[in-house]
Amino acid sequence: MALIEDYQRVRKYSETLCAPLKVEDYVVQIVEFASPPKWHLGHTSWFFEEFVLKQHDDNYQPFHEQYGYLFNSYYNHAGDRILRANRGNLSRPTVEEVYAYRHYVDQAMLAFIPSIRDEGLHNLIVLGLNHEQQHQELFLTDLKYVLGHNPLLPAYDTARHLVDGGNTTEGTVAIEEGVQAIGHDGTGFAYDNEYTRHKVYINAGSINNYLVTNRDYLEFIEDGGYQNFSLWLEEGWKWVNNHNINAPLYWRETEEGWRYYTLAGDKPVNPDALLCHISFYEACAFAEWNGARLPTEFEWEVSADNLDWGQRWEWTASAYLPYPGYSKQPGAVGEYNGKFMSHQMVLRGASVATSPEHSRKTYRNFFYPHERWQFTGLRLMAC
Amino acid sequence: MALIEDYQRVRKYSETLCAPLKVEDYVVQIVEFASPPKWHLGHTSWFFEEFVLKQHDDNYQPFHEQYGYLFNSYYNHAGDRILRANRGNLSRPTVEEVYAYRHYVDQAMLAFIPSIRDEGLHNLIVLGLNHEQQHQELFLTDLKYVLGHNPLLPAYDTARHLVDGGNTTEGTVAIEEGVQAIGHDGTGFAYDNEYTRHKVYINAGSINNYLVTNRDYLEFIEDGGYQNFSLWLEEGWKWVNNHNINAPLYWRETEEGWRYYTLAGDKPVNPDALLCHISFYEACAFAEWNGARLPTEFEWEVSADNLDWGQRWEWTASAYLPYPGYSKQPGAVGEYNGKFMSHQMVLRGASVATSPEHSRKTYRNFFYPHERWQFTGLRLMAC
Amino acid sequence: MALIEDYQRVRKYSETLCAPLKVEDYVVQIVEFASPPKWHLGHTSWFFEEFVLKQHDDNYQPFHEQYGYLFNSYYNHAGDRILRANRGNLSRPTVEEVYAYRHYVDQAMLAFIPSIRDEGLHNLIVLGLNHEQQHQELFLTDLKYVLGHNPLLPAYDTARHLVDGGNTTEGTVAIEEGVQAIGHDGTGFAYDNEYTRHKVYINAGSINNYLVTNRDYLEFIEDGGYQNFSLWLEEGWKWVNNHNINAPLYWRETEEGWRYYTLAGDKPVNPDALLCHISFYEACAFAEWNGARLPTEFEWEVSADNLDWGQRWEWTASAYLPYPGYSKQPGAVGEYNGKFMSHQMVLRGASVATSPEHSRKTYRNFFYPHERWQFTGLRLMAC
Amino acid sequence: MALIEDYQRVRKYSETLCAPLKVEDYVVQIVEFASPPKWHLGHTSWFFEEFVLKQHDDNYQPFHEQYGYLFNSYYNHAGDRILRANRGNLSRPTVEEVYAYRHYVDQAMLAFIPSIRDEGLHNLIVLGLNHEQQHQELFLTDLKYVLGHNPLLPAYDTARHLVDGGNTTEGTVAIEEGVQAIGHDGTGFAYDNEYTRHKVYINAGSINNYLVTNRDYLEFIEDGGYQNFSLWLEEGWKWVNNHNINAPLYWRETEEGWRYYTLAGDKPVNPDALLCHISFYEACAFAEWNGARLPTEFEWEVSADNLDWGQRWEWTASAYLPYPGYSKQPGAVGEYNGKFMSHQMVLRGASVATSPEHSRKTYRNFFYPHERWQFTGLRLMAC
Repeated sequence: MALIEDYQRVRKYSETLCAPLKVEDYVVQIVEFASPPKWHLGHTSWFFEEFVLKQHDDNYQPFHEQYGYLFNSYYNHAGDRILRANRGNLSRPTVEEVYAYRHYVDQAMLAFIPSIRDEGLHNLIVLGLNHEQQHQELFLTDLKYVLGHNPLLPAYDTARHLVDGGNTTEGTVAIEEGVQAIGHDGTGFAYDNEYTRHKVYINAGSINNYLVTNRDYLEFIEDGGYQNFSLWLEEGWKWVNNHNINAPLYWRETEEGWRYYTLAGDKPVNPDALLCHISFYEACAFAEWNGARLPTEFEWEVSADNLDWGQRWEWTASAYLPYPGYSKQPGAVGEYNGKFMSHQMVLRGASVATSPEHSRKTYRNFFYPHERWQFTGLRLMAC
Repeated sequence: MALIEDYQRVRKYSETLCAPLKVEDYVVQIVEFASPPKWHLGHTSWFFEEFVLKQHDDNYQPFHEQYGYLFNSYYNHAGDRILRANRGNLSRPTVEEVYAYRHYVDQAMLAFIPSIRDEGLHNLIVLGLNHEQQHQELFLTDLKYVLGHNPLLPAYDTARHLVDGGNTTEGTVAIEEGVQAIGHDGTGFAYDNEYTRHKVYINAGSINNYLVTNRDYLEFIEDGGYQNFSLWLEEGWKWVNNHNINAPLYWRETEEGWRYYTLAGDKPVNPDALLCHISFYEACAFAEWNGARLPTEFEWEVSADNLDWGQRWEWTASAYLPYPGYSKQPGAVGEYNGKFMSHQMVLRGASVATSPEHSRKTYRNFFYPHERWQFTGLRLMAC
Repeated sequence: MALIEDYQRVRKYSETLCAPLKVEDYVVQIVEFASPPKWHLGHTSWFFEEFVLKQHDDNYQPFHEQYGYLFNSYYNHAGDRILRANRGNLSRPTVEEVYAYRHYVDQAMLAFIPSIRDEGLHNLIVLGLNHEQQHQELFLTDLKYVLGHNPLLPAYDTARHLVDGGNTTEGTVAIEEGVQAIGHDGTGFAYDNEYTRHKVYINAGSINNYLVTNRDYLEFIEDGGYQNFSLWLEEGWKWVNNHNINAPLYWRETEEGWRYYTLAGDKPVNPDALLCHISFYEACAFAEWNGARLPTEFEWEVSADNLDWGQRWEWTASAYLPYPGYSKQPGAVGEYNGKFMSHQMVLRGASVATSPEHSRKTYRNFFYPHERWQFTGLRLMAC
Repeated sequence: MALIEDYQRVRKYSETLCAPLKVEDYVVQIVEFASPPKWHLGHTSWFFEEFVLKQHDDNYQPFHEQYGYLFNSYYNHAGDRILRANRGNLSRPTVEEVYAYRHYVDQAMLAFIPSIRDEGLHNLIVLGLNHEQQHQELFLTDLKYVLGHNPLLPAYDTARHLVDGGNTTEGTVAIEEGVQAIGHDGTGFAYDNEYTRHKVYINAGSINNYLVTNRDYLEFIEDGGYQNFSLWLEEGWKWVNNHNINAPLYWRETEEGWRYYTLAGDKPVNPDALLCHISFYEACAFAEWNGARLPTEFEWEVSADNLDWGQRWEWTASAYLPYPGYSKQPGAVGEYNGKFMSHQMVLRGASVATSPEHSRKTYRNFFYPHERWQFTGLRLMAC
């Protein structure tokens, strides 16, 4: 049965990602937005326990009465939960206990799945697997944040540094003027925010088939980009000054030049590699400096079949807002996307940290304009 | 000469608005976003001194060497400036000195205007007058904030309470599907953010020809709207809880029912009057509760000729972003609009506090989603 | 009758101090700890209205029902009050109205005083006058804070700059070892914190008969005193670094050398003048650098008859704690001193801003260790 | 050799205390003031490496070049250090690596100690052992803070709950009036803050021979003690209201009555047990409510031989200030005590968490008035 195989494959991949960790690495949280590995392992299991097993499997006995409180993320429908900033405050449950919880849930799910006849329930489990894939990427970005801020700069996995790839294409792709359809067509899985498919008027344009590299960005830095207010949005300029920003996240200037932390450890910045870990503000300032602009998410989507994409989440010029006809699902899963539709910007594409089989051209990722701990990059287009 | 007359009329109106004030009222600032009347009077004069007289009138002698520092608002190009939050820290210059400054600038402008031959310079003065009109509305909203938070609830002008009007129309207006042109056509003055005029694909819809009233909103309150998380955006729900919001700004519950502060003094809430002083979050939650939604700024604009508008700034579903082909002007006036194009939402229409001759259907006002001290209201449309 | 004369003299002096002000100066508050002149005028009147007239004069009609809310400072017994940080938020009542309030209270008091037969009530009025004298000094220090932070650096009164005096004596005064009595002996007015008179064991020592001058302190600055952590208390070192402190309050370095704001306007720092506007932390660091120490309040008091004092409030090494046998009075006036007996340090002496007839050698002034807006200085003694 | 034995005994006791921990427990820090076990183990070793081995043992090779940065606490003399609040951000070094560091330092110390002939160096090692004993108590209080804030309320060691003891004596002890000597007499080890021994005038009084119990304190709670402003110091009243304090730390009200977290797990509050985990503010408010007061540290010390003490650190009425003739040692160890002499209050006695052989009647412990995570209690005396 395909769902069983998908379930096993996705769930196993989360544990594979954890293989290089020490027990101590599972525990630490240093900023509110980056959760500890232990929590990711527990939360992705909680999703199946809370929304599938507790509600649909009459035989299910919850593993522990307080795990719902510990591992709920942001679902108001699912009740009280520990503060997000406090996820790293928990020495208990131990790592061993969290794995026991995962395996308990897995056993129950594997016993339960074959009995499922209802398409809605089937789709809910598919949603749970996509949810877990999102957390697999977050696992990597959150872990990078902790290790990359440790004075010892320990490597996660020297075989996987993930940011050294460069452009494999060049040139531009032409965009034709006219009305085009945007959004998911309903074939296969998609999140609710990719619906409904609707028409958009697209202007003619020309979009780069390559992303901005570290070499490009070093020029911006050396030209005083971070000191020139006229390149920045007002909120961006405040952010730069309040946080003394002068380079992408994980970069630091040394006597031997710029270095950056990667999951394979500390390295000199590779000028050919694609720029990574920048905010929307930096993307806009760089584009302004370059006399170019960011594509809208619609321009990106209508060009996607002709573009080389997938190494970086690409900031777009579009705010994260509902598509015409958008409606959220009832209950807790309706909190998945819709309530976040303010203050955030859309990113398109995927990154080297994205889990296998978890990308498509209609995918709408979204983060706050100042956030940089994802593998974010930038594609320009002509003004 | 029309420009001289416009200059005199607009400048005089600022002083007319100040007529009911006591000296003390000119001085006080209680929140960063609401500046004191003295500062508005100085800043609007500074605009002409800094951008017109200092740069184009060779005969001009600045009034005071430090007024540039005191009365610059947010123009990085124009140098250092006092922190916005500190505008109320200044007992000096006195009100009398600020009026002397205004009149000094006016004399210089009136002597200078007849000599102008350059269209760009002419347009810059027109921009300065529109700028002053914007500050006239801010004068009223900022003053209301100070007086409305004074325990004595003093009236500004008992003849002008400004919020008691109700709907004069009913029914809905149909929107037709298709490609339509959006933005200013270039006839008469418009801000740079209204350009370039461009095509947008509009879906069919139905927009209300009336605004939400206090009666409507009281139902929402009584139905527990402020306590029901499922109606709110995530950022809105945080805002409601962090600030203990349970009613529009200036409302307070008393033993005799809801009352609100108006510029004519404290009054019982009039159920027939149009709802005023709500945030974007409250607008969205109310719409959600009502099974309706906010129009986009494009839906609003294509319907505007058929709508009754002008009593409240109407929150739209559109983020404040540049139109295709937008480019900011060089130098300081380029900071007027463009750099604010993140985090804010577009409001359309105008309000009872808007200055005469300062509204048009392509006007794009913008505020942060939590802001309520403007005369903001809400028009719904069917989902 | 002496009390009537005292009442009139003290009350009038508050208004004399206000003579050089513009209306705007009465209104502004820029930090929580420094209240606007309008508030001082109202609050000192409120003391008599609230504690004397309302409670003891059956004929008294309160001036305005909300003035109690507006002009209570910190008396929990006297009910709700406006937040201290919001005293500058009030454009109303106007200055004229506050003077009307003062005069209304004065008339009632002058009519009421002759009828008083009760000693407790007499003493309460004496307390009210001492209270007003304290606010007269605060009036000057608070006003200096507002004007001294105005970019225009306006003078209050060019005839009174108040900080230019230097030492008039030299040498040291010997302190003899043994048991001595400390505290007020009950002759004349004293605050409750000066009681009870009790015995203290004093060690032999030698205390300077002169205060630290600006010349002395400039040496400390030039020697890197503000950069040398080993001179500072832990809390002081945090304070220096968190606030980037590098000189006394009101000092600023210019191309022509150090200048400071005085109530007579901006001037070059006078090296012979007594050091002023320093924190307890700076006092301690300077003493440490000098190989000396601050006297305790007991050492100060037993030497006071032989010392030249009265130009600066002198930081002592003593924490503000109750004397043996201290007991606070019942009711609101019991909140005058006792509840502040934690976190603060004792200052002894008086300053050039202290009101006439408001100093004595047992007087215990107290402020937080970081506070500098009082006219604070420093006397050293040998370790 | 006694020093070798002392070294081995004290160092081993730190590891004994860690025996019940899981790896995860070593890592977590949830507030700035409570450090993780891993850090305590590293820091106490660093003390010997930094101050003894690096400076006096020519053969010593540092274990790791960055451990100085990671394990310095507050010694400015010893260079840069990780922010105190970030001690829990470190998943690496692992627990295993920290133990390796300890054992490396121990081997070097045990090889080095026999060669020591210098008394100052001997005393420095004794200081290091007393330092480690202080951290042993902090280990318990910090660990209790983490486990006691975990929703699972895990026990540390069910055999050691540490707070259940009650009074074993009753009655009062008379204090005689007169001059008495205070401070350490120089026999055996003492911290610099216990010197110099000096004379103090003591008033006659009567001090309880028993401590306040939970029963006593429950009466205070039930009588509305936390709601009655007139019992509290101003700073205490702000603290109660800002933090919604309504019981000692670790207490919580349940349907079955008050319960508290102990290191042996969650238990009903035992009314006979000595009150624990209160702030100085609560101590003062309780005393005020009781018509009594706290003893000064001098009253405590002169009575100590006749008192039963050692179960709770007892808040005194004395601010933590230097004794007459106090002088700090040169260099880093001079930072041990002296720089903390502001804002803190003296506690006398010892607690059930104090390490064996680490208490004496002249010992001056000190904490900020709001701090409660130590095993703090209260002894009253008559006013």
